[in-house]
Amino acid sequence: MQDHLAAVLAAAGPVTPLDVVLADAVGCILAADVTAAADVPGVAVAARDGYAVAAHDTAATHHGQPPTLPVAHDLRPGAPAGLRLVPGQAVRVASGAPLPLGADAVVPLEETDRGTARVAFQRPALAGQHVRTAGSDVRGGDVVLTVGTRLGARQLALAAAMGRGRLHVHPTPRVVLLSVGDELVEPGGAAAPPGAVFEADGHALEAAVRDAGAAPVRVGIVPDDRATLREALEDQLVRADLVVTTGGLSELAHDTVKDVLAPLGTVRLDHVAMTPGYRHGFGTVGTAVGRERAVPIFALQGHPVAAQVSFEVFVRPALRTMGGHADIFRPSVAAHATVGWPSPAGMRQFVPATVVGSPDDGYQVTPVGDPGSPSVQGLAQANALAVVGEQDLAVQAGQVVHCLVLEG
Amino acid sequence: MQDHLAAVLAAAGPVTPLDVVLADAVGCILAADVTAAADVPGVAVAARDGYAVAAHDTAATHHGQPPTLPVAHDLRPGAPAGLRLVPGQAVRVASGAPLPLGADAVVPLEETDRGTARVAFQRPALAGQHVRTAGSDVRGGDVVLTVGTRLGARQLALAAAMGRGRLHVHPTPRVVLLSVGDELVEPGGAAAPPGAVFEADGHALEAAVRDAGAAPVRVGIVPDDRATLREALEDQLVRADLVVTTGGLSELAHDTVKDVLAPLGTVRLDHVAMTPGYRHGFGTVGTAVGRERAVPIFALQGHPVAAQVSFEVFVRPALRTMGGHADIFRPSVAAHATVGWPSPAGMRQFVPATVVGSPDDGYQVTPVGDPGSPSVQGLAQANALAVVGEQDLAVQAGQVVHCLVLEG
Repeated sequence: MQDHLAAVLAAAGPVTPLDVVLADAVGCILAADVTAAADVPGVAVAARDGYAVAAHDTAATHHGQPPTLPVAHDLRPGAPAGLRLVPGQAVRVASGAPLPLGADAVVPLEETDRGTARVAFQRPALAGQHVRTAGSDVRGGDVVLTVGTRLGARQLALAAAMGRGRLHVHPTPRVVLLSVGDELVEPGGAAAPPGAVFEADGHALEAAVRDAGAAPVRVGIVPDDRATLREALEDQLVRADLVVTTGGLSELAHDTVKDVLAPLGTVRLDHVAMTPGYRHGFGTVGTAVGRERAVPIFALQGHPVAAQVSFEVFVRPALRTMGGHADIFRPSVAAHATVGWPSPAGMRQFVPATVVGSPDDGYQVTPVGDPGSPSVQGLAQANALAVVGEQDLAVQAGQVVHCLVLEG
Repeated sequence: MQDHLAAVLAAAGPVTPLDVVLADAVGCILAADVTAAADVPGVAVAARDGYAVAAHDTAATHHGQPPTLPVAHDLRPGAPAGLRLVPGQAVRVASGAPLPLGADAVVPLEETDRGTARVAFQRPALAGQHVRTAGSDVRGGDVVLTVGTRLGARQLALAAAMGRGRLHVHPTPRVVLLSVGDELVEPGGAAAPPGAVFEADGHALEAAVRDAGAAPVRVGIVPDDRATLREALEDQLVRADLVVTTGGLSELAHDTVKDVLAPLGTVRLDHVAMTPGYRHGFGTVGTAVGRERAVPIFALQGHPVAAQVSFEVFVRPALRTMGGHADIFRPSVAAHATVGWPSPAGMRQFVPATVVGSPDDGYQVTPVGDPGSPSVQGLAQANALAVVGEQDLAVQAGQVVHCLVLEG
């Protein structure tokens, strides 16, 4: 299984970087350092509503109070810089306005008599008070964001404040989801025919893809029909960085996915030594327009627990790699099993489980439902997958088990 | 400041629950328990491609091998349930097909000679092997998801597998973002005029709102003009669960936000005893269509660090409350300061900082840039906000400081 994961990760390299607008860069990984072209602010500005002064003009007189100063004019944010303060005068400035040349302090309104012709101060100003100096927000010439940085709110604020409307990032991978099977019906419609199975994989993986930092395109249900599946795939390849099919892997029910994928690329359908998720296809097909590499494709089993476990084990790390993320794996903890359970020989077993505890007190893990037959209900109630090695025939109560911690 | 936060949280109750389609429920909090109406699967189904048998028909004969059995017919997923196995025969079943009545085991293809008229088995079958029993995925009548659950991939899989196309949730709060100021220009355009300030708050808060689990509507730049701002607000109120304005709070530059908000509702513009983020407006205005309560509105300072700190301290907890989340605050750690710095009297100080360490080894915190004048660049490089209490005039090196851990 680890060999298979290594092959998957080798085939799924980071998506080619692109310049994208700020809104599309959210959550992406920066693909190039960002250097500030200029200081922000470009000139010193007032940090408060008040009066710009030369601090030495407000020194206390022999009365022990600062002198009143004539108020020359008003400045607002956006006003051109370069106006000069007449020595011995004050200029009324709104917060954010450029400081006149010769001023080195701002006295807040609340510390004055708010005069418009002349202004009186409560105390002498200190040079530099309530002034945001040139470059105090961003220093021109500095490398302000480095390659590999994840772009969140604070990094976008920085880019925008410098006037950058685009950033060079690994764009969000686009993932096409196809659910294959004649038996599938969409949930939420009228009463399902007898024997029908509600389509769950596409809905679940749409959320899982988004949680992995990628963008899902849920195509929905495709019947067990080679021509229809081939057409759906070819339609979607132009927009896909990765394709995931679920279902259609049964040898006794058309073998749709295998027959369609075989001629399109290098997809291999294998048995992987894990449970659930024993049947598994992986390879690359075609070439997306504007992309340098062929599109990786995963063919997962249709049962929702198998599909989701295979997604967690193989697809999620591949998507994180494609997005350029450094942290491609879920966090994991070592937890003591509260009960024992059997595990099949030669298979890595993934068991929906509840992990409780803390770094200080240690962790305990308990399977949710029957570990030999994990259920959709159990997986929904779990917060982790307990992982039992291929060589272990059982977990003993008290044994330490490696657990992948799931979201939510 | 804590009083102000309490008032904010009291005014921002959970958004009224709605039935939403599964794709819109992702990340939302469930507002009602979900009970499974019926078993999933409804009948026992094959867990593997193979042959459905009565296990006792495969018991070893006196030769030590199971007998070969005639193969009656094939079953695929979606086939109607209720067919009956003729005793002493086998039925070929695809994975997911309903088991015929009278069968209690599936022998996988790989453990047979794959015969189509008669089939030979490698060993006797065990009753129950490779069968998913009725209700093994979801047990009808069980409460399978409880109120307060965050809906991720695994919970959507469960709902969809039961045929539920909608779920009753606290819908994602819609947050309208308005950036007020004549001096603002959109980043990424042509060269900005002298004195212009690039609009950063809307871009940053768009990402921050999404990170808080809410849906941003970035209106963009609105000039310092009362009529224009009033019109923009009235246009947006119908779609807003919450409004955030940034900028326009300067008393010396029109006081646009204060003058527009005052007649619309109960908004108060106050000084909050914190830095940055000293000026701050909060209240409720109008009533959104289809909502039970007036719309909360925040008026934040325009400087990007002040806007983001106020968002973290007040708006994010309000949004988490509105979304019905139990975890409304950022995780926090207690960290030892590696250096000392001054803090203003009577103000809670928020300092962009880097926290390193682990639960086992403890944490250390170092300010990024000048704690007295936090910068956009520093905030982008920080991973935490160090919080210094109103009564502290300084942090000493080695002192334990409370730190909010930021995303990414």
